[in-house]
Amino acid sequence: MPLDESWFTEICETDGSAFSLKIKQKLHEEQSEFQKIEIFETEKFGNLMVIDGCTMVSTRDNFVYHEMMSHPVLYAHPAPKRVLIIGGGDCGTLREVLKHPEVELVHQIDIDERVTRLSEIYFSELCESNDDPRAELMFIDGIKWVNDAAEDSYDIIIIDSTDPVGPAEGLFSRKFYSQCFRILGENGLVAQQSESPLLHMDIIKGMYQEIQEAGFIDTATLFFPQCIYPSGWWSATMACKDNALSGFRQEDAENKPFETQYYNASVHQAALSAPEFFYPKLTE
Amino acid sequence: MPLDESWFTEICETDGSAFSLKIKQKLHEEQSEFQKIEIFETEKFGNLMVIDGCTMVSTRDNFVYHEMMSHPVLYAHPAPKRVLIIGGGDCGTLREVLKHPEVELVHQIDIDERVTRLSEIYFSELCESNDDPRAELMFIDGIKWVNDAAEDSYDIIIIDSTDPVGPAEGLFSRKFYSQCFRILGENGLVAQQSESPLLHMDIIKGMYQEIQEAGFIDTATLFFPQCIYPSGWWSATMACKDNALSGFRQEDAENKPFETQYYNASVHQAALSAPEFFYPKLTE
Repeated sequence: MPLDESWFTEICETDGSAFSLKIKQKLHEEQSEFQKIEIFETEKFGNLMVIDGCTMVSTRDNFVYHEMMSHPVLYAHPAPKRVLIIGGGDCGTLREVLKHPEVELVHQIDIDERVTRLSEIYFSELCESNDDPRAELMFIDGIKWVNDAAEDSYDIIIIDSTDPVGPAEGLFSRKFYSQCFRILGENGLVAQQSESPLLHMDIIKGMYQEIQEAGFIDTATLFFPQCIYPSGWWSATMACKDNALSGFRQEDAENKPFETQYYNASVHQAALSAPEFFYPKLTE
Repeated sequence: MPLDESWFTEICETDGSAFSLKIKQKLHEEQSEFQKIEIFETEKFGNLMVIDGCTMVSTRDNFVYHEMMSHPVLYAHPAPKRVLIIGGGDCGTLREVLKHPEVELVHQIDIDERVTRLSEIYFSELCESNDDPRAELMFIDGIKWVNDAAEDSYDIIIIDSTDPVGPAEGLFSRKFYSQCFRILGENGLVAQQSESPLLHMDIIKGMYQEIQEAGFIDTATLFFPQCIYPSGWWSATMACKDNALSGFRQEDAENKPFETQYYNASVHQAALSAPEFFYPKLTE
């Protein structure tokens, strides 16, 4: 049955699939300096932000993505004090990072200020920590920021970007990872959204190669559901500068001093379990 | 962007979402005695079977569902010899069950023979074990079969059904689970597909209540991705007659004498980790 104009549809051409949400109305549309941003009010998923035709965040299901982009990498570091977020303009990841009391400073670098300004209006719950004195939001080029930063500037770098085409392409390269490596301190960790394990194993395989060539000593992928993204199955890949990724502060995670909807210590461990096809495909 | 007629779309009305696959051609359509069955050749997901408008199985991604409906429950039983599959007409679950050498007998009871006959043509790889001498396929009413079966007839019952509306509704009821309880032997286990944790917590909550009222001593849910089903996130719920479900034959699973694409011992353990929202929603 064809869908009429009351649906927003994202078509994933390369995989011949599409996902649609029924909309009540379009709340906003603009062409920013960098991309086309649309905001819809949906029937059942709350508000929806779409950038260049791709679903970015919905009120209903963003909790999985934002929690999995933040808590695993923070609990994988022994003492995460200094966090850099590249991208993340909707501020959902920032909010989760700031739930960790040991975090002293978060720099968030998103090239497009309009994403954040629109999130403040349409996803205000994600922006509720933007005024935290530990957080500094800057709207500049993330790659330049990383290139210019001093050695040992951060404990954690979270790359919460769009897909590796267009403005985000440079964020999936060896050159960029090498700079991340340089500006991380001891036990430094990177976490980056890494697309769908069902549809995008070529991208994940490429990331592993680039990350390893940049000098990181261990790499591990987290698997989690994400309804509004292609295939409904998503991943984040973590890399550690100088330590194995097998452990995390499990006791701290079990006693986390904040609420979550998806993440817990058991889910942390579970998300690291790779499907049987995964490692063979990384090396084939 | 509206999708044209070259797409098959399943609309999930109650959740205002839809999933579509681009099709090359419709291979078959019929109204069987029980339901409307359509088979499509898709662009990127191989063949697709649709029953009464709902996606059932695609060549590309069915491995996750079939492996998670079979291997966890079989490795959760100390010695699974006698298996009953209710539904499962595409025979993908049956194929996985028969990979376990300790299984001596599998009865598969699907009410609609046409599903199996069409699977033999369009999903022949799923049907490759149908002639296994341990397997007996019967095309009769599963509820009647269970009601008529003797006590201690099976070690495992797998309920691989369509959604709990129409012909499958009775498979989600206390009355049915009580009969399952009766015909299971010591350590007997049920595993049943239990819809999307994001969209259908009301169904899962209802299942838990009905299962517990039927006398099962422990219940646990497995979480896994399933691209072509609503939300892309699915679940199977297991119940044990007289034992806790916390353990499984981990060493046997680690040394499984067959290949899988999704399941392994680590994934088994991981799939049992419930998202933080899950248990509170079961009891609220």
